[in-house]
Amino acid sequence: MTEPRIRVAVSTVIFTLRPAGDGATLALPLVRRTREPYEGQWALPGGWLDATEGLDAAASRTLGSTTGLAPSYLEQLYAFGEVDRSPSRVVSIVYWALLRQDEVDAQRAAHAVTDSAPENVQWFDADSLPTLAFDHTDIVAYALWRLRNKAGYSRIAHGLLPDEFTLADLREAYESILGRRLDPANFRRQAEASNTLIPTDRFRTGSHRPARLYRYDRDVELAARGPAPTPR
Amino acid sequence: MTEPRIRVAVSTVIFTLRPAGDGATLALPLVRRTREPYEGQWALPGGWLDATEGLDAAASRTLGSTTGLAPSYLEQLYAFGEVDRSPSRVVSIVYWALLRQDEVDAQRAAHAVTDSAPENVQWFDADSLPTLAFDHTDIVAYALWRLRNKAGYSRIAHGLLPDEFTLADLREAYESILGRRLDPANFRRQAEASNTLIPTDRFRTGSHRPARLYRYDRDVELAARGPAPTPR
Repeated sequence: MTEPRIRVAVSTVIFTLRPAGDGATLALPLVRRTREPYEGQWALPGGWLDATEGLDAAASRTLGSTTGLAPSYLEQLYAFGEVDRSPSRVVSIVYWALLRQDEVDAQRAAHAVTDSAPENVQWFDADSLPTLAFDHTDIVAYALWRLRNKAGYSRIAHGLLPDEFTLADLREAYESILGRRLDPANFRRQAEASNTLIPTDRFRTGSHRPARLYRYDRDVELAARGPAPTPR
Repeated sequence: MTEPRIRVAVSTVIFTLRPAGDGATLALPLVRRTREPYEGQWALPGGWLDATEGLDAAASRTLGSTTGLAPSYLEQLYAFGEVDRSPSRVVSIVYWALLRQDEVDAQRAAHAVTDSAPENVQWFDADSLPTLAFDHTDIVAYALWRLRNKAGYSRIAHGLLPDEFTLADLREAYESILGRRLDPANFRRQAEASNTLIPTDRFRTGSHRPARLYRYDRDVELAARGPAPTPR
């Protein structure tokens, strides 16, 4: 039985949707590294797995300690373990997460009050990231691919939207995830036919004509996210 | 920087389809443990990650050294890392794999010739497994769930079939994966409409009336299997 010296880290790609021009854009927080390797470069929030905690717990803890954020949706993405991905041998169990912009704002406000705002953290648009440390550029690309893929067959976009939203909000969320424009009329038809949206009696008013607010049917799972829903 | 003592193992759930009665059944090889913990119990093939190899390579190597098998399809399933899943702290990166029965037979025959057949290995039907060591019962259940799930939106079943097959073969593969009977006429209609099957000029003859042989269109990906297909 050999016991090679391999360390286990946990990192999280956490996306939110933030307003940009007429629509919205996917954004994620990065942490500037304060030590070697890759000192001064941006990296995914994360840290070492502790011997006394499970992987999911480690992802939540390290995300919280580095960014102050607590995600509304967290799912294991992939274990990255190429030999040369770090100067020392590190296997990273990577999670991906979603957080609604209103929750980001609320969590930020809470940190401002307690003066516990994390340092060295900055949000970046997913389509204009700086050069990242380690293989984190590849990891973000894969997380985006998984998000896009999952958007096609689950209501995962809800993890980026507030409880009530207009069909335009929902379309913009999908446009941001998929990285392309969708035809509004087609989108409305498909969304209404999906049977996952419940129309409310409320409307959003403002500079445009009033738009009906919808909410998701909570009886429909956000998405299957790992071994938890396994039938026993 | 804490460096807790955590070891990394790699295990693989490898399925094949073997004839059973009128149809076929999913089966997987297990290895009887020859030391503690769980000495004498059945476990998934696997071993420790070596410091000088990547995760995929470790999965192939440990599968080969314990069972003599080389899979036709190998994909990372999930990293299992609950604190109490083993007496010592072990994070297992688990893969799942498919192997056609004709390849199982060919690889077995090769081992018989060279007298290198692995010991302590036995194949079990996926729906009647013994009690497994560690959390391996949960892991197999999750691998089955992933296989069933993926069968719904990819041509993954091909990983269990020979190059040429009848529509009845294909239906039996799906029936084994999904664990339920499918209507032959409906299945034929859907398979023919999928545009992934290419009819050949050959037929299988035997006790039944001749059945046309098909092959898969190789231009269609078996399934997205991880970061590899990530757009850069």
